[in-house]
Amino acid sequence: MISKEDIHKVLEGYDKKKLTIATIGSHTALQIMKGAKDEGFRTLVICRPGKEDFYGRFGIADDILSVKEYIDILDDEFQQKLIEKNVILIPHGSFVEYVGAKNIEDKLRVPVFGNRAVLGWESDRGREREWLIKAGVRVPREFDRPEDIDCLSIVKFPGARGGRNYFLAKNAVEFEENIRGMKLEDRENFTIQEYIIGTRFYPHYFYSPLKNRVELLGIDIRYETNVDGVARISHLLGEHPNPSFVVAGNIPVVARESLLPRMMDIAENLVKASKDLFKPGMVGPFCIESICTENLEFIVFEISARIVAGTNLYMQGSQYSQLLYDEPMSTGRRIAREIKDAGKENLTRIVL
Amino acid sequence: MISKEDIHKVLEGYDKKKLTIATIGSHTALQIMKGAKDEGFRTLVICRPGKEDFYGRFGIADDILSVKEYIDILDDEFQQKLIEKNVILIPHGSFVEYVGAKNIEDKLRVPVFGNRAVLGWESDRGREREWLIKAGVRVPREFDRPEDIDCLSIVKFPGARGGRNYFLAKNAVEFEENIRGMKLEDRENFTIQEYIIGTRFYPHYFYSPLKNRVELLGIDIRYETNVDGVARISHLLGEHPNPSFVVAGNIPVVARESLLPRMMDIAENLVKASKDLFKPGMVGPFCIESICTENLEFIVFEISARIVAGTNLYMQGSQYSQLLYDEPMSTGRRIAREIKDAGKENLTRIVL
Amino acid sequence: MISKEDIHKVLEGYDKKKLTIATIGSHTALQIMKGAKDEGFRTLVICRPGKEDFYGRFGIADDILSVKEYIDILDDEFQQKLIEKNVILIPHGSFVEYVGAKNIEDKLRVPVFGNRAVLGWESDRGREREWLIKAGVRVPREFDRPEDIDCLSIVKFPGARGGRNYFLAKNAVEFEENIRGMKLEDRENFTIQEYIIGTRFYPHYFYSPLKNRVELLGIDIRYETNVDGVARISHLLGEHPNPSFVVAGNIPVVARESLLPRMMDIAENLVKASKDLFKPGMVGPFCIESICTENLEFIVFEISARIVAGTNLYMQGSQYSQLLYDEPMSTGRRIAREIKDAGKENLTRIVL
Repeated sequence: MISKEDIHKVLEGYDKKKLTIATIGSHTALQIMKGAKDEGFRTLVICRPGKEDFYGRFGIADDILSVKEYIDILDDEFQQKLIEKNVILIPHGSFVEYVGAKNIEDKLRVPVFGNRAVLGWESDRGREREWLIKAGVRVPREFDRPEDIDCLSIVKFPGARGGRNYFLAKNAVEFEENIRGMKLEDRENFTIQEYIIGTRFYPHYFYSPLKNRVELLGIDIRYETNVDGVARISHLLGEHPNPSFVVAGNIPVVARESLLPRMMDIAENLVKASKDLFKPGMVGPFCIESICTENLEFIVFEISARIVAGTNLYMQGSQYSQLLYDEPMSTGRRIAREIKDAGKENLTRIVL
Repeated sequence: MISKEDIHKVLEGYDKKKLTIATIGSHTALQIMKGAKDEGFRTLVICRPGKEDFYGRFGIADDILSVKEYIDILDDEFQQKLIEKNVILIPHGSFVEYVGAKNIEDKLRVPVFGNRAVLGWESDRGREREWLIKAGVRVPREFDRPEDIDCLSIVKFPGARGGRNYFLAKNAVEFEENIRGMKLEDRENFTIQEYIIGTRFYPHYFYSPLKNRVELLGIDIRYETNVDGVARISHLLGEHPNPSFVVAGNIPVVARESLLPRMMDIAENLVKASKDLFKPGMVGPFCIESICTENLEFIVFEISARIVAGTNLYMQGSQYSQLLYDEPMSTGRRIAREIKDAGKENLTRIVL
Repeated sequence: MISKEDIHKVLEGYDKKKLTIATIGSHTALQIMKGAKDEGFRTLVICRPGKEDFYGRFGIADDILSVKEYIDILDDEFQQKLIEKNVILIPHGSFVEYVGAKNIEDKLRVPVFGNRAVLGWESDRGREREWLIKAGVRVPREFDRPEDIDCLSIVKFPGARGGRNYFLAKNAVEFEENIRGMKLEDRENFTIQEYIIGTRFYPHYFYSPLKNRVELLGIDIRYETNVDGVARISHLLGEHPNPSFVVAGNIPVVARESLLPRMMDIAENLVKASKDLFKPGMVGPFCIESICTENLEFIVFEISARIVAGTNLYMQGSQYSQLLYDEPMSTGRRIAREIKDAGKENLTRIVL
């Protein structure tokens, strides 16, 4: 386990005038690098073979490093190379998925933006639920055993694999039908959640410890295959396949203004709860996955405590970001701005 | 009843260099204030207790006043306070809903942007329909009595409560099943409209009496709970609940360019008709709620003669607004711009 | 048939400092003209009677010419008038539909942006499929005869009429039921394609021969009537009408970043294949109509080798365009920029 002290020692050795913002080439890397460039940083992207050309074509990557597998960034030599370049890593969904929350906490000496302790909380469904409940947020019911299912439910599997293999079931029989074909490992590691019907909202927030405020930077709806394709013509399908929920993209949305205060309350309560659960709490971007019911109540079924893919809609800023910022402020740029604002003195408050 | 003359006398007393743009803290208040600030006005927002922090956090409210109930803004003393601040009120959907079109016409001495007579026309379904028909716009069939229902129909209730309690019925039996549980007051005050199937378009217009032109500032689709959630997995639901149509948000859309001339014709015909129905007619923002059928005909089922919530998508301007304006022109900002353009001499042409 | 040499002779006679960008008043004309004005060109729009006011109202048409039918632009005198104004025509979907790909190749002496040979390839389903397959792109299965239909299929008709009359059929019987009422001409000229279920993505590309690069400028989803209206309440409809697929608008979307490299590969392979099929290949804007399956594979069911209507979403630029351009770069503006970049010397490389 790498301690905060170890990381802050690495930070101490950095040339603060030559920081490099880096991430893994996937998920929100384009946005992160564009934002970093806009704020005057050098950028670096770590790619798997074959992706270098793609990431090179936009003129926003000052440096491109290749690794065979993303996990290789944990190699001592590779880490040393990053440290020599004064790298601050920005974790995103694929980053956490491919490197692993535990590996990041235990083995990554390179400074990472935010509080790396949060990654263990958001990627473990049990702790995630504890956090949500502690924050007073409404969550869906969960069923420990398939036999307990008494309403339409969604069955989920661990990791940020974008909804792969998720399925719906109304009872234990449908559960069994769906789980039968899966690998043993998956079959033992599921969560059964009440499926809430309503409008989906995935608000993107940013918590700045420097300003001590939560900002709303945009909202999206996930565009999922094949459920969104099935829904369009479901009555024409002879048989009704169980849809899959693989996130393929995102669609922009705004919420009724009278819902925004509640949306902000939820976010602030989550920040507050995080300060109790893992001091000094969450830092930087996060997102809740929520459903707004017909009674206009929000049920929160997940929290992502890092930049989410839906923010890619707002690489030019959003309706909401421009209430706060005169420039086009994406979440990627907001991260870079926080690092810039921290300057030499306060980097240890946002790299934990 | 407050006469135009009374209001213009109030306006006369105003310090025109220190006008304050004000509205009620809900619906489109953020956009209205941001637009007012961008045009150089002072802003004021009237909040119910507990919302002050939310409206204070964006740095766009110069002044925040609290009221216990929104209806309290009719109190003499409160009105006097607004008048002393040279306030022009901007009416929006929640404003009209909470204060009441009749109260605004009868009791509000504070100058209101636009022609307050329009609020009585848009919030009364009978007069609204008269207006649409006079403008030569295609409207859905309506059924006076449940027994007359002969096709899939939507049953609506008065006020801008965002679709609450609306339901669908194919015949009198389904009508009765749905209305049974409602409060008596609702049960007597419904409209039964043919449910038109097609793509929904809610274009946002602005009519400027100063320029004598109608501008298209954006288009949205309403995102409604729980109908949009039910539709996504309807074939998986054991029983098929009647969906509800509570507006929770808005999704951006553009229309096929060949449909735009027709969209503009409809708007101009509505402005023309309004001049006959309530001189000098409609002023400022309005929206039609329309369906585009597979024959590419527009059926208009409602008109909102004030700023609509869908404009919140375009707080940074839209595809359409930027054809007319080099700056990011939201509907909120467009209102402020019209007030600025009116200057001292022409305020009485847009505050009626 | 007009040869490239004929056209280049016309170009030679042009006053290159006074080029006029022109198109037909429909489809993407507003965007094309706005983009041309932003790049400093004169603009001209050709309208059918009654549309002049609409195209005049935005202040972006320097010149408006009326024709009774669009096909009249082929008249010698009319062409001469355009040539005298140093016009470069921008073809779009309605342009190709109304004037005809063959007429453009055979009779239009006025210089047209891009390689006019491409229009014959994209508007003929057989050649279009040959092109897609040559590029190594996955395409849906096709059935030559109704009897061969063995899965849910979509039946399409020629031309860019925006999906009119398209229908779904699961077998020969359903095919016959649907085709019966049609005009004889349509009944003989259909394509039967496997209906792929997934999320729809219509990425907008621009291939610049001057920079020899493909740019991603945006992505949309088509909003179709009445299928998108039926889907919303299909379980409430007593009978289930076969939906129609008439494009009425477009909704913005972004794709998961890990899908973008594949999206770019497809585009580059299509450009490469076009260079073999019709030298010197495709120039300027194009779009693929694709479905992303639950295995995150793209199936491409169509290619449009000219500006598409979905680009109207991004008249202010998109998430993707701003990675490449500091200014708001619409596809319309990108076309004008390419013409400007070509200058005197290289016009013949992009007007073919």
